[in-house]
Amino acid sequence: MGTDVYIGHGGKELVERISGPDEAKEKVKNLKIKVPISGQISREVLDIAYGWFSPIEGFMGRADVESVCNQMKLSDGTVWPIPIVFDVSEEEISDYGIKEGDTILLTYQNQPYATLEVEEIYSFDKQKINQDVYGTTEDKHPGVKRTNAFKDKFIGGKVTLINPPKINPPFDEFFFPPKVMRKKFKEKGWERIVAHQTRNVPHTGHEWLMKHAWIATHGDMKIEKTVTGIIVNAIIGEKRKGDYIDEAIVLCQDMLRKAGYFRDDVHMTSITFWDMRYAGPREAVFHAILRTNLGLTHHMFGRDHAGVGSYYGPYDAHRIFDKIPKEDLSITPIFVTEWWFCPTCGEVTCSSLCGHKPQRFSGTVIRSIIQDGVKPTRLIFRPEVFDLVMECAEKYGFGSPFVTDEYLEKKPDRFTVPPMQG
Amino acid sequence: MGTDVYIGHGGKELVERISGPDEAKEKVKNLKIKVPISGQISREVLDIAYGWFSPIEGFMGRADVESVCNQMKLSDGTVWPIPIVFDVSEEEISDYGIKEGDTILLTYQNQPYATLEVEEIYSFDKQKINQDVYGTTEDKHPGVKRTNAFKDKFIGGKVTLINPPKINPPFDEFFFPPKVMRKKFKEKGWERIVAHQTRNVPHTGHEWLMKHAWIATHGDMKIEKTVTGIIVNAIIGEKRKGDYIDEAIVLCQDMLRKAGYFRDDVHMTSITFWDMRYAGPREAVFHAILRTNLGLTHHMFGRDHAGVGSYYGPYDAHRIFDKIPKEDLSITPIFVTEWWFCPTCGEVTCSSLCGHKPQRFSGTVIRSIIQDGVKPTRLIFRPEVFDLVMECAEKYGFGSPFVTDEYLEKKPDRFTVPPMQG
Repeated sequence: MGTDVYIGHGGKELVERISGPDEAKEKVKNLKIKVPISGQISREVLDIAYGWFSPIEGFMGRADVESVCNQMKLSDGTVWPIPIVFDVSEEEISDYGIKEGDTILLTYQNQPYATLEVEEIYSFDKQKINQDVYGTTEDKHPGVKRTNAFKDKFIGGKVTLINPPKINPPFDEFFFPPKVMRKKFKEKGWERIVAHQTRNVPHTGHEWLMKHAWIATHGDMKIEKTVTGIIVNAIIGEKRKGDYIDEAIVLCQDMLRKAGYFRDDVHMTSITFWDMRYAGPREAVFHAILRTNLGLTHHMFGRDHAGVGSYYGPYDAHRIFDKIPKEDLSITPIFVTEWWFCPTCGEVTCSSLCGHKPQRFSGTVIRSIIQDGVKPTRLIFRPEVFDLVMECAEKYGFGSPFVTDEYLEKKPDRFTVPPMQG
Repeated sequence: MGTDVYIGHGGKELVERISGPDEAKEKVKNLKIKVPISGQISREVLDIAYGWFSPIEGFMGRADVESVCNQMKLSDGTVWPIPIVFDVSEEEISDYGIKEGDTILLTYQNQPYATLEVEEIYSFDKQKINQDVYGTTEDKHPGVKRTNAFKDKFIGGKVTLINPPKINPPFDEFFFPPKVMRKKFKEKGWERIVAHQTRNVPHTGHEWLMKHAWIATHGDMKIEKTVTGIIVNAIIGEKRKGDYIDEAIVLCQDMLRKAGYFRDDVHMTSITFWDMRYAGPREAVFHAILRTNLGLTHHMFGRDHAGVGSYYGPYDAHRIFDKIPKEDLSITPIFVTEWWFCPTCGEVTCSSLCGHKPQRFSGTVIRSIIQDGVKPTRLIFRPEVFDLVMECAEKYGFGSPFVTDEYLEKKPDRFTVPPMQG
């Protein structure tokens, strides 16, 4: 991918672990142990290989998991808030005959996909992970539930992608791995780029959060050319019933640009494959790392960032950055309050500035309006976005813009591993 | 004024040249030459004495004027864009018998007002001032006209206020000299403060420029307490026919806060006495210096800042800051484009972000609407501001919100020098 050297999180060269086709074929020939993977692991293999998880080169060993839990750092001292683990059962280990020192072939969709160098096979106290990462061991916390569902052993070791998947529409046009993203920024001439983390179809409150983030990031820069950009980075992973469907999220976020609510030269939509942990403050730090690796300079954090239920205070995900020395994170957090519709102002405005008593945006109310197919005022929800949500419901959502059992069961894979040639 | 040490422009202690009452009385007794002043000079005496013009301690001598013209610097190297001169005619010099080395008493409204130490009496090429400061010698440029109206000699020398004036309503509640302003900021807990220069009654385009400036200044600061403020700093000086009347400007700017378009804890209106030179880029730098001395950390500059006619390009007042080394100016410029009403967005939005073809705010159109007494939509002009403009027209404007001949003739002085006791 060119000769430019890109620096990732932790100040090291951005990780890229992808074999060329010939090397890949050779590996496949020689590897005896084949282990099928799916779901979270298949996505995290991609994240590791393309450098989204830089400086991590594989699934974590015990020392890293322990250090992440205890200190929110890798064992080499790099800030890292969430364990990245490859879970496996005792039965699988013995059935496949996996031993430390082996290199195994990971298959996905019955195709060779990646290699895993088995450096360490170990077990780890899941409740320690839950307590340290999520601050709770309650199984109704979706992150805790995810930990608890892990099989009993973890394999630590380096991962190499040998068969890069094809990203399926409509996600393909939003897939920009870290090195590709950085080239995009160079083309656009952006010097400062702010991330907007999303799992939502945008209402105007979200739109203004992005505008706030752009202005705060742009700061004292000159205005003669556009040197500041906003990247919407949608998290694509396991879905929960009632979420917006992924297709509506990415297409509607991009519609804000297509329909002119953002200029072409300031706004771009993209995706990261990741299964939300809902770890609140720790996940905020994790998102900062993902976007550092994507080459962004700033990251917006709003109210309840990556939170769930009442496990975290509304601004805990802001406060955690107080504990991280500036030099340990090369992305600058942009903290925002809320943007709400104020009837007295007659428009959407910022809770830090408006002295009236406005109406907070209620995601629930907006969703119920959309569920009923009623078009809200353009001051709350853009008509082009509304029309597209409805279109997506028909095209991708089995009639619903929100995730249903049917969607969970029938939605196509977001990426496909092609048969290996030769 | 307390024992805090305040640093002004150029890194030196903020100038304050005001005699205590006893010392003042003593001076008045001993000074033989009394020279009445008015207009611009009376305002600039105040600016010098209170430190608005720090590090300047008096009216400029030839070396400073020459250096300001040639290099936009005082002769000691401090950035300074506009000559500050005390003009006097040959006749006055001989009639009053003014000589270098004298200290003379300046009277205002027939009262002792300040002293001037006559260090230098000199003449200076006015066309050089015009060309260097305004980039033109055309007399229709109001700054050029002002230079050309100067009498033929200048007196350079230090000024000391001996009889602080009483600021008259409604301006009194907006008069915060530099040291007072800095104490205010401390009380408010503001760490970053951005200046909004104005000579206007605000429409929503102005309101959003201020919101932009606040967000850009706030940048990556925390949100848990309000640490960022906006200071509206209205320029009060000589008026031109058709301008908004001063009373409407200050009261309506403050109404944005009173009516809740800005929270009480982020917004404050204030005044600076200064006669606009319309020097475009050089005046932008001058405004930056005034607000540095007021203790502000940031200064917003929009389109056509302090410009007039077509003498300067729309963003020349941005570009001039490229020529000033960062360490020579302790205030940070915040450059903004335009905020306009976009019918597609249905709201006021920023030209750097909005991809539609919106309607630019036309000051002229808004003024003609106001002239006709028609209340515009709240999205363009706040109803509370509109009502107050009308009230000000009746109370202060002889029926008009805009300056008329009658207003020019009859408007009361903005400050009154009290009789000296004893």
